[in-house]
Amino acid sequence: MTITEIIPENGIKNIHTKKPLIQCITNYITANDVANIILACGASPIMTDNPEEASQIASISDGIYINMGTLNDNAIKSMIEAGKTANKENKVVLLDPVGIGASNLRNQTAKLLMENIKFDVIRGNISEIKALYNGNGNTKGVDAAVEDEINENNIDDIVDDAIKLAEKTNAIIVISGVIDIVAGNHKACLIRNGHSMMSSITGSGCQLSGLITAFAAANKEELFGAVAMAVCTMGVSGEKAYKRMSADDGNSTYRNYLIDAVYNCTQEIIYTDGNIKIYSK
Amino acid sequence: MTITEIIPENGIKNIHTKKPLIQCITNYITANDVANIILACGASPIMTDNPEEASQIASISDGIYINMGTLNDNAIKSMIEAGKTANKENKVVLLDPVGIGASNLRNQTAKLLMENIKFDVIRGNISEIKALYNGNGNTKGVDAAVEDEINENNIDDIVDDAIKLAEKTNAIIVISGVIDIVAGNHKACLIRNGHSMMSSITGSGCQLSGLITAFAAANKEELFGAVAMAVCTMGVSGEKAYKRMSADDGNSTYRNYLIDAVYNCTQEIIYTDGNIKIYSK
Amino acid sequence: MTITEIIPENGIKNIHTKKPLIQCITNYITANDVANIILACGASPIMTDNPEEASQIASISDGIYINMGTLNDNAIKSMIEAGKTANKENKVVLLDPVGIGASNLRNQTAKLLMENIKFDVIRGNISEIKALYNGNGNTKGVDAAVEDEINENNIDDIVDDAIKLAEKTNAIIVISGVIDIVAGNHKACLIRNGHSMMSSITGSGCQLSGLITAFAAANKEELFGAVAMAVCTMGVSGEKAYKRMSADDGNSTYRNYLIDAVYNCTQEIIYTDGNIKIYSK
Repeated sequence: MTITEIIPENGIKNIHTKKPLIQCITNYITANDVANIILACGASPIMTDNPEEASQIASISDGIYINMGTLNDNAIKSMIEAGKTANKENKVVLLDPVGIGASNLRNQTAKLLMENIKFDVIRGNISEIKALYNGNGNTKGVDAAVEDEINENNIDDIVDDAIKLAEKTNAIIVISGVIDIVAGNHKACLIRNGHSMMSSITGSGCQLSGLITAFAAANKEELFGAVAMAVCTMGVSGEKAYKRMSADDGNSTYRNYLIDAVYNCTQEIIYTDGNIKIYSK
Repeated sequence: MTITEIIPENGIKNIHTKKPLIQCITNYITANDVANIILACGASPIMTDNPEEASQIASISDGIYINMGTLNDNAIKSMIEAGKTANKENKVVLLDPVGIGASNLRNQTAKLLMENIKFDVIRGNISEIKALYNGNGNTKGVDAAVEDEINENNIDDIVDDAIKLAEKTNAIIVISGVIDIVAGNHKACLIRNGHSMMSSITGSGCQLSGLITAFAAANKEELFGAVAMAVCTMGVSGEKAYKRMSADDGNSTYRNYLIDAVYNCTQEIIYTDGNIKIYSK
Repeated sequence: MTITEIIPENGIKNIHTKKPLIQCITNYITANDVANIILACGASPIMTDNPEEASQIASISDGIYINMGTLNDNAIKSMIEAGKTANKENKVVLLDPVGIGASNLRNQTAKLLMENIKFDVIRGNISEIKALYNGNGNTKGVDAAVEDEINENNIDDIVDDAIKLAEKTNAIIVISGVIDIVAGNHKACLIRNGHSMMSSITGSGCQLSGLITAFAAANKEELFGAVAMAVCTMGVSGEKAYKRMSADDGNSTYRNYLIDAVYNCTQEIIYTDGNIKIYSK
């Protein structure tokens, strides 16, 4: 399968046409960047962490993005309220289990969320996904542990586990890393785009999760392809952002260039620069 | 009336001289941008959402900016505490009813705030102001609904309603859109500045409300003109920011250029590029 | 003593090698910038304000940064939990008493924190440090009062007080201003770097405190020198950022350039451009 067979033919156009409203229950560190990247791809963000309105906002939204970056009682209640409404009303829901493995609170919250909500997509780094899968990831704060890193030698085992987790949870599993993995029921694809500078800014993972929710909400009938396309859009944009950097630029300018590149991304750019392959051993 | 007769002669200079302290009780998504745009125009921001200090901080502040973007019990209590102190001590208070219409919580909070606080200025998009006026705005999340959009054909009716709301609330009403409206008692002015890119970044409305509070706090004796000038400053800056954009730039760079343009804005620039007209049918 | 004798020989290299995890319990206004500047210098941030996980996150962290910018009950409890764990497990803890003097809540919280936690470093502007020292700082919101400003005439008295406070608290005291002061037991150094544009962006102080925590955590054996080096890195970066500015740039672009400059800062740049002198009357 080539890239044109994997991703939705009008993936980005559908976002611009439908302008899906994305409810974000997310951390306050990267909320601004998440909102701006959702706007960059053509969708519209609304943020809340108040349980009194979480369900009502979910009802008017097209996709719900749940991010565990900074947890508190209100946020957790909001996540459950919004997630349940989303399930009932058949809206896309994504979980980003930020920092799972780093504290009991995060482990328990992830468990609680997965018991109460059926997620369409779960995205994390390899340590987070391992922690979700079997409780033995080496999470170091919010970054993946070096010993967990994905490479060409361990990729088969990781994809196998990702597919198993996808089947167990009935969600598309996205693992971000040097190679990105998108795993579904009996299938997976690998995306070899992106740049190491992406890990030098805060919230590139949070941003990606927001982007995936927007792509998925606007392309619900082709969910797997939409998720893969969002991951590829982020990776390609990470490459383009790096190419713009001059000698004095650093991670702050890179952050701007990354969102700018998503803003300027087109279907054609993805076809030209995207490196998505269906996985086969 | 020409622009020089409408806006304060030393509008920007007064901010730089008085350096008013602006208390912001606002959402965590755009708080950083709001703080930076307040600094950009020469004022000084202080943020709090703790009811234990809200009134005390209001007392040392020159203007109070209340934004409903992310509501919680502490924030709402803080808003009322700060607003009451502001009224008692005769300080400028602005309300930005973000997302009113999108949830009962937001509707009820706006009502509660208006019952307890006499606002000097209320700013929103057309859907928000409609929801405030008669409960029938078509709020789509935090953006104005397409069917509500201001244009040359419906402007008369909207201005009429804005003036009525201004008289009813005894506040200056600002409606942001393709044409911006500033309405007061028996009068209004229209501002035709700005750029469509402004709606591609999160919080351009929040930022404008911060800017208005700063202009109003430093130019209290000419409140109507100060508000119009702030709206014009934002619009002119939005135009200047767009002119700086290169092919690879997107909404993130635009966000920076917008605040930069406010930083570099002068009284002369407003006289040259501002398009403010007193409204007459 | 020359600069090479004051600062750690491998100050920056140690951060890149050890990649210390910095727990930040900080305000939501500048959290994103703080995270990005910590990443810029080679360390890794994790943010939380939940008392259920604050101690556990402190245990896996190498440095703890406590910032009073936006206080609430959960944040205050988290600060105490994390600080106590840090003391027990011998990790670096820094206090940034943002806005102390502006409200009773902030005064009382600073007192509570200092009674419960032994801080390694305390950083503030001159008004904040005066408020901490003797309760008579002229804090105007979160900025230093003009009448408190450090200059060549009052520097002796201020340094004397800073050394006394350092001895009383057993913490290194950092006072940010036109001249930066780093005071320890029976000694101090003065840093004459930086640029006035730094006060035109929100959170340059918060960012500096994050940077100091990262430098200190990675260079614990040379704590005084590490703190001085962090202050100097920020100052030198502030100068470099200003040199990059073009006519249309303002405070938002400056904010990016500042973090970029920290990202590109090297030991050599500090040796060349740093202006650190051991204080002697």
